[in-house]
This record gives sequence, C-alpha cells and structure tokens, in this order.
Amino acid sequence: MEENVAKKEEILQQAENVTKIEDIEKQVAELQTQMESISKNTAENKISIIVFSGDLDKVLAAFVIATGSVAMGLDVVMFFTFWGTPILRDNEKKVDGKDFMGKMFGTMLPKGTGSVKLSKMNMAGMGTAMMKSLMKKKNVASLEQMLELSGELGVRIFICEMSMDLMGFKREEMIDYPNLTFCGVATFLEEAKGSKVQLFI
Amino acid sequence: MEENVAKKEEILQQAENVTKIEDIEKQVAELQTQMESISKNTAENKISIIVFSGDLDKVLAAFVIATGSVAMGLDVVMFFTFWGTPILRDNEKKVDGKDFMGKMFGTMLPKGTGSVKLSKMNMAGMGTAMMKSLMKKKNVASLEQMLELSGELGVRIFICEMSMDLMGFKREEMIDYPNLTFCGVATFLEEAKGSKVQLFI
Amino acid sequence: MEENVAKKEEILQQAENVTKIEDIEKQVAELQTQMESISKNTAENKISIIVFSGDLDKVLAAFVIATGSVAMGLDVVMFFTFWGTPILRDNEKKVDGKDFMGKMFGTMLPKGTGSVKLSKMNMAGMGTAMMKSLMKKKNVASLEQMLELSGELGVRIFICEMSMDLMGFKREEMIDYPNLTFCGVATFLEEAKGSKVQLFI
Repeated sequence: MEENVAKKEEILQQAENVTKIEDIEKQVAELQTQMESISKNTAENKISIIVFSGDLDKVLAAFVIATGSVAMGLDVVMFFTFWGTPILRDNEKKVDGKDFMGKMFGTMLPKGTGSVKLSKMNMAGMGTAMMKSLMKKKNVASLEQMLELSGELGVRIFICEMSMDLMGFKREEMIDYPNLTFCGVATFLEEAKGSKVQLFI
Repeated sequence: MEENVAKKEEILQQAENVTKIEDIEKQVAELQTQMESISKNTAENKISIIVFSGDLDKVLAAFVIATGSVAMGLDVVMFFTFWGTPILRDNEKKVDGKDFMGKMFGTMLPKGTGSVKLSKMNMAGMGTAMMKSLMKKKNVASLEQMLELSGELGVRIFICEMSMDLMGFKREEMIDYPNLTFCGVATFLEEAKGSKVQLFI
Repeated sequence: MEENVAKKEEILQQAENVTKIEDIEKQVAELQTQMESISKNTAENKISIIVFSGDLDKVLAAFVIATGSVAMGLDVVMFFTFWGTPILRDNEKKVDGKDFMGKMFGTMLPKGTGSVKLSKMNMAGMGTAMMKSLMKKKNVASLEQMLELSGELGVRIFICEMSMDLMGFKREEMIDYPNLTFCGVATFLEEAKGSKVQLFI
C-alpha cells in the first residue's frame, strides 16, 4: 500500500517536472528572442560627429574629440557638411569645368585646412595667426597634423554630397584620405543611430 | 537488491531535478525582471533635434536631417528655441497688444522662413540670395517646402515657451502646423532621453 | 508486463528531463552572461553637455538644459572648453606671472559670467543689456544665478585643461564651485559615452 502511494507521488512529481520544464523552455525561448532584439538595438561603441562648421576652433575641437575617442577604443565617424566641406579640399589640386557659381564659391571659401579661420576674434587674420602660433608653442597639433593622425587612427570621414553639389565642388579636388566616403544624410544617420555619442559641431 | 538501488537512485535524481527546476525558475524570473527594466531603459527609434540657431544654413541642415530621419523610419521631434523661434512665426498673421520690447524684438527678428539669413557670407543679403538661387537650381528644397514636407511626414515640432515669452511672441502669430506643441525644456528632455540621437543645432 | 513498460517509460522520461534541465541551465547561463554585458553597456540616466560657446544665449541654454535635467532626475556633467572656459573665471581673483599671450587673452576674453555677450544682435552691448533686462523682467534666472543653482543641484562642471593652457588661464583664477574638475577630453568622453543625451553647445 505505502509503496503504491509513494509510486503515485513519484509519477505525479514526474509529470509536474515535465510541465515545468516545458514552461521554462518557453520562457527561456522568449527571453532569447527579447535578448536578440535588444542586442540589435543597442548602440555600438561608436561616436558620430557632424562637422557643419568651418571655423578653425570648432573643427579643431571636432578632431580633438575624434582622436581622443579612438584612444578610448571608440569607432569614429566624421560627417563633413556645409561649411565643413571646403576644409577637405586639397590645396594642390585644380579642377576645370566649373560653372560661374562653382568658381565663385570655390574662390570665396577656404581651401583646405590651412586657410580655416577662428569663429571669434579672427580680427582680419591676426587672432587666427595668434591662435596657430599658440597651438604650436603649447604643442597642440595643427589641423593638418590632426587630419593626418585621424587617417592613421582609422577615423572614417564622410563628405556630404548635397553640400558638394551646392558649392560646386568636385570629387577630384578633395584630399586624399584613407577612409573617405561621399554620401548622403541617410548613410550618416545609419551610423549615428547606432552610436553611443552624436555631436553636431 | 539491485532493483532497490536503482529505485533509490531514481528517487534521488527526481529530488535533484525538482531542486534544479526550482533554481532555474528563480533565475529565469530574475532574468525577466532585468529584461523588463532594460527594455524600459532602451532608447526608442527616435531623433530629437534642438533648433537653437536661426541661421538659414543651420535650420536647413536641421530639416534635411529631420526629413531624412523620417525616411529611415525614425520618429522625429524638433524643439525650436531662442533664435530658432522667430522662424516659426507666420508672416501673414498680425498680433496686437505687444509691449515695447515685444514690438522691438518682433521687428528686428526674422519673421517666418522667408527672411532667414545665412550664418556666414550673408554679405548684406547677397550670399543668402545666392544660396537660395543655388538651392533652387540644384533641386534642394527651400525652407518653406521643408517645413511643409515635415508636417506631412509627421515630424513633431515643439516651440520653447520661455523663448516666446522672452521675445514677446504670442501663440496666435505662430504658423499653422499639424503637430505643433508649446512646451518647456522638461517636455523636450523627456523626448530626448528616450531618443537614439540628439543634436543641438 | 505492463508495469515494466510503464517503468521503462518513466526511466526514459527521467533521463530526458535530466538532459533538458542541463540544456536549459546552459541557455540560462548564456542569457545571464549576455544580460550582464548589455547592462554594462547601457547608458546611464545622465546628460553630458559640452559648452564650447562663450555666447550669453548659448551658455544660458546650456544651463537651462542642465538645471532642467536635474529636475528630471538626470545626472548632469558640463564640460567647458574653448570660448566657454573664460566664463568660469572669477572676476575677483587676480593672478600674476602670465606671459604676453596669456595677458592678451586674459584681457580680450570675457571674465566671468557678467561679461558674456549675445551671439547675435549684441549691437555694441545694447542687445545684450536688453536681453538681460528682459530676462530679469520675465523672471528668467541670470547666468550668475544659474551657476549658483547648478552648484546647489549637484551639476558637475569639468574645465578643459587644454583650453586653459592655450588661453593661459591658471587654476587659481577660476571660480569656486562645489563640483569643479580640471580634465582632458578623455575624462569627458568617458562620461559622455555612458550618457543618454550628449549635446555640443
């Protein structure tokens, strides 16, 4: 008799175990699905910087942040648009076949990192020259050096095609840079939304 | 005898199973709690843009990013504050009862998207006119078109009440826009902290 | 006979249970590892603001956002760099031993919150005075009040050492503030990448 009771209990327990295991399996599967969707949704160890400004001080800040981010193990994407675009023109390269507007913008906008000015206290170039001399004295890298360093560190640079089109710049007149891409705002946004940090400079 | 040993082992195994199942159940429950809290904490597929600037180039960039974000499936919130506020005034609407300061600001600040100027190279309006003509030629949407498109695409626009109060603007003189909200910084921050991307333009 | 079949089935079921439990244990352990890594990777309830600008309107916006964020339960870090740095100089403190450049920058840049100007419509100080009088009238806190409030609310302020070095500022001439840290870009990025919101102002 007693044995039979024990037997029954054992069978009941077994059945309960089977039910519980099935229940847990479902919950674990559900958790795995959720985990996958969250993982896909989680920002990568990446920083995306929009360089809209063409001012020496701001572009410098962008590069200090960019190179500093690489040092901290972050993947870096810089998106040069509007006033930031002319900075990436190569001073040595010449292009023909521009229309009137293109020539005008081409002449009026700074060509390359060397001709970029301060946003404030430029004072007909004196402030900018002062700042550059100070940067040299204080061992702060120049824009040229920053750009070279960024290339070596694997910072990716995107150039906004709409800005280039608006200002009449051609691909052939832009700098040689290891990780240069010409793209639209969508490509940038794709990078930005998967980044931990985004800055509009 | 042998049968008894097997029996005992079976019972022990059964007991172990029960313990293990209970243990797993606790762990799964714990994981579910953690998952819930992480899900709540995860940024939504949303971009929040503070439009602080009132410059044609920057506001244009804000709208290019906003409409581009919608195209990529992101929910978009724009928060117009300070110099960005006067852009959203309706050129056709007139309001009475402003005090001296309000009238002064009202006259000095651009009224609506049509009177917005470039941050650089404005050159007494020539640069701005040039840029607008270029945008037309290159098929880049004007600010007016951008604003209309944003409304159709469901971009939500928030106007900073503190800025309106400071500049003496009244609600009646602002544009008609499908998703317009007057609010404070807290409402914006609530949106921003749940967004994947935030920009201060 | 029948009993033996039942017996066998029971033993098989038991064996299957053991296998399933082991399998589930592995999956749960895997989920726990993933959960831990995601938790570490999730942004904290924090906002990081780079105050690059030294304009009254922008710095004011930075402080409105900073104090508003505290009110919403966010931890706040402000990183003052470049033109933002001179704002944090104490008007009462004097320092000796500056070189020529340091003296020049020291004189030309605004000293403290009282001498900060609007980015637009400064009009030789008239616009700035007008805005300040308006802010008072409309009960908007002044920069001085904002700074004091921020200190009381536990807003942490970081000052960029590279900027201080470039502009020749010394630690002794900066304001007394409860949570003041002198640091480089790396320290700031560490905070920024763990924040839900980051702004470059």
